[in-house]
Amino acid sequence: MRAAVFDGPGRIVVVDRPDPVVAEPTDAVVRVTATCVCGSDLWYYRGQSPREHGQTIGHEFVGVVEEVGAAVRHLRPGTQVVAPFRWNDGDCPHCTRGAPVACRRGGIWGQPGADGGQGEAVRVPFADATLVPVPDGAAPPELLPSLLALSDVMGTGHHAAVTAGVRPGSTVAVVGDGAVGLCGVLAARRLGAERVVACSRHPGRQALARRVGATDVVAGRGDEAVAELLDLTDGVGVDHVLECVGTGESMRTALAAVRPYGGVGYVGLPHGVELPVGTLFGRGLTVGGGIAPARRYLPELLADVLDGTIEPGVVFDHRVGLEQIADGYRAMDERRSVKTLCLVEHT
Amino acid sequence: MRAAVFDGPGRIVVVDRPDPVVAEPTDAVVRVTATCVCGSDLWYYRGQSPREHGQTIGHEFVGVVEEVGAAVRHLRPGTQVVAPFRWNDGDCPHCTRGAPVACRRGGIWGQPGADGGQGEAVRVPFADATLVPVPDGAAPPELLPSLLALSDVMGTGHHAAVTAGVRPGSTVAVVGDGAVGLCGVLAARRLGAERVVACSRHPGRQALARRVGATDVVAGRGDEAVAELLDLTDGVGVDHVLECVGTGESMRTALAAVRPYGGVGYVGLPHGVELPVGTLFGRGLTVGGGIAPARRYLPELLADVLDGTIEPGVVFDHRVGLEQIADGYRAMDERRSVKTLCLVEHT
Repeated sequence: MRAAVFDGPGRIVVVDRPDPVVAEPTDAVVRVTATCVCGSDLWYYRGQSPREHGQTIGHEFVGVVEEVGAAVRHLRPGTQVVAPFRWNDGDCPHCTRGAPVACRRGGIWGQPGADGGQGEAVRVPFADATLVPVPDGAAPPELLPSLLALSDVMGTGHHAAVTAGVRPGSTVAVVGDGAVGLCGVLAARRLGAERVVACSRHPGRQALARRVGATDVVAGRGDEAVAELLDLTDGVGVDHVLECVGTGESMRTALAAVRPYGGVGYVGLPHGVELPVGTLFGRGLTVGGGIAPARRYLPELLADVLDGTIEPGVVFDHRVGLEQIADGYRAMDERRSVKTLCLVEHT
Repeated sequence: MRAAVFDGPGRIVVVDRPDPVVAEPTDAVVRVTATCVCGSDLWYYRGQSPREHGQTIGHEFVGVVEEVGAAVRHLRPGTQVVAPFRWNDGDCPHCTRGAPVACRRGGIWGQPGADGGQGEAVRVPFADATLVPVPDGAAPPELLPSLLALSDVMGTGHHAAVTAGVRPGSTVAVVGDGAVGLCGVLAARRLGAERVVACSRHPGRQALARRVGATDVVAGRGDEAVAELLDLTDGVGVDHVLECVGTGESMRTALAAVRPYGGVGYVGLPHGVELPVGTLFGRGLTVGGGIAPARRYLPELLADVLDGTIEPGVVFDHRVGLEQIADGYRAMDERRSVKTLCLVEHT
């Protein structure tokens, strides 16, 4: 098969790799139909986090089951499936407590020894527990981008909203206008938030934010954004902040813009973030987040995609084929693209 | 009236003070029937936090309405009332969002210019919003300790349980065997926790913990406690930890004993506490707490006291009269008493 691999900072190449096969009875092999580039893929692309050369990459994909192991009960060849960005066995104590992302036998696509999502096929461990089949076998093709968004960004935005405590009637601010932030806006509205303020200075992303449900936009950053958010809420602060960036500044903005006894959900991998206990305790804030348990959220979000309630696929604003996936990395690195979808055509 | 005042570290004296009067139309004057000493009163008693000499003290009391201002609508003289440890106006944006503790015109009993709870009477600002009347005018005398516990410690233990996310079926650990920790055990059981592990090495407090619903007790501290809690949960960790101490060690214990994607509620004023963002993000933990919105919780907890569902008054293991309140401080300072109740007799 053809698969994208990391060939050093700034260098993504598509190479021939052995076709994956069913190795364990609980495996499935999935033929990938669509994958995409994640903001977190840019860390190794930019040389900001280590990654071995020659490693397969990508952790988001949608595909069709090609083959299943003898112990797989709930999937059959030909069924369209959404893969969360990590696999999980479904029956360890963490999985059964709703934390599949902490599965004792779990892992992430593209880790050493595992196929990446950015290739023609993937061997999926614990396929019954990991993959979420599309009811009726396949969704209409126009839903493909939204299905793919469920692999990571929509579940992650939803996790920010859930851990921030968003409820019907809430006033919410979303810090970060990337794909996760936009999905956070969508998730907050879906959970019933009455007012959702997107923080973005980029006209295209502002428009996207409004399209997914933002009722207000503030263009400032840092102290300016805080001042605007306090202005919008009569000096009280918003009920909940979705911190979808992961920098020290974005967390400071979140903690200053949330009202006393409000909640902050943070899902951007923290770089230089501090959680000042005096502020948190004194203002009675609840702070939660981390890597999203995307698998847990997938069934409910999938149902909403299928019935047209949400359309997270709008975060994709650029498309490439697998052989051109390096262009997708480049577009995202240069911030020309919010998120790049990669259609995988099989020859 | 007679009222306790701070006369320097280790010195609590009872002196004559002017009788409080209705100064604003929204005021009430309450004749105190019972008050108590709080763990946090020991800070100034021990000289660990500053306090002006001659200041009235105490922030917990139950009493009877003696006089009301012209604008007070829902209280009448003769009604028994429970006071939360802070007053609040009931209609500022924080009060209306369930955060009365952040009320813009709020304050705490015993702050400069305000009466303390440890005296014969208290002027109560915003009486309608602040005080919670006992239905039917008065409760049976044997319930007095439990009513008094609603002023602070029971609401605070409940806040720890709520912010930790305790739900029916949860497994919970409570760090801290003081009055708040014991109320935390009670609150966790009340919220449906199936298993509540109290951390205590003190036989008397262990027995009290079991009395209020602890299903297990671990006697270790720090790493030992963590090891015991992991043992009790097959290495998984507990779903929720109520951190009711406020030291660096107690928070480290909490963060290490909670399972991935679990929750920690912390209500002990932090001294040397750190919230390491890498651990919190990596383990997907939710952390919340702070000073409890006791007023918000009072009606539901009061109903449960009145119908006998909970008996938080069991945390009181020592009684004194107002003139002997210095003995109560001493007993608590020397850890001879979990919490000392002070009956105020009016001559």
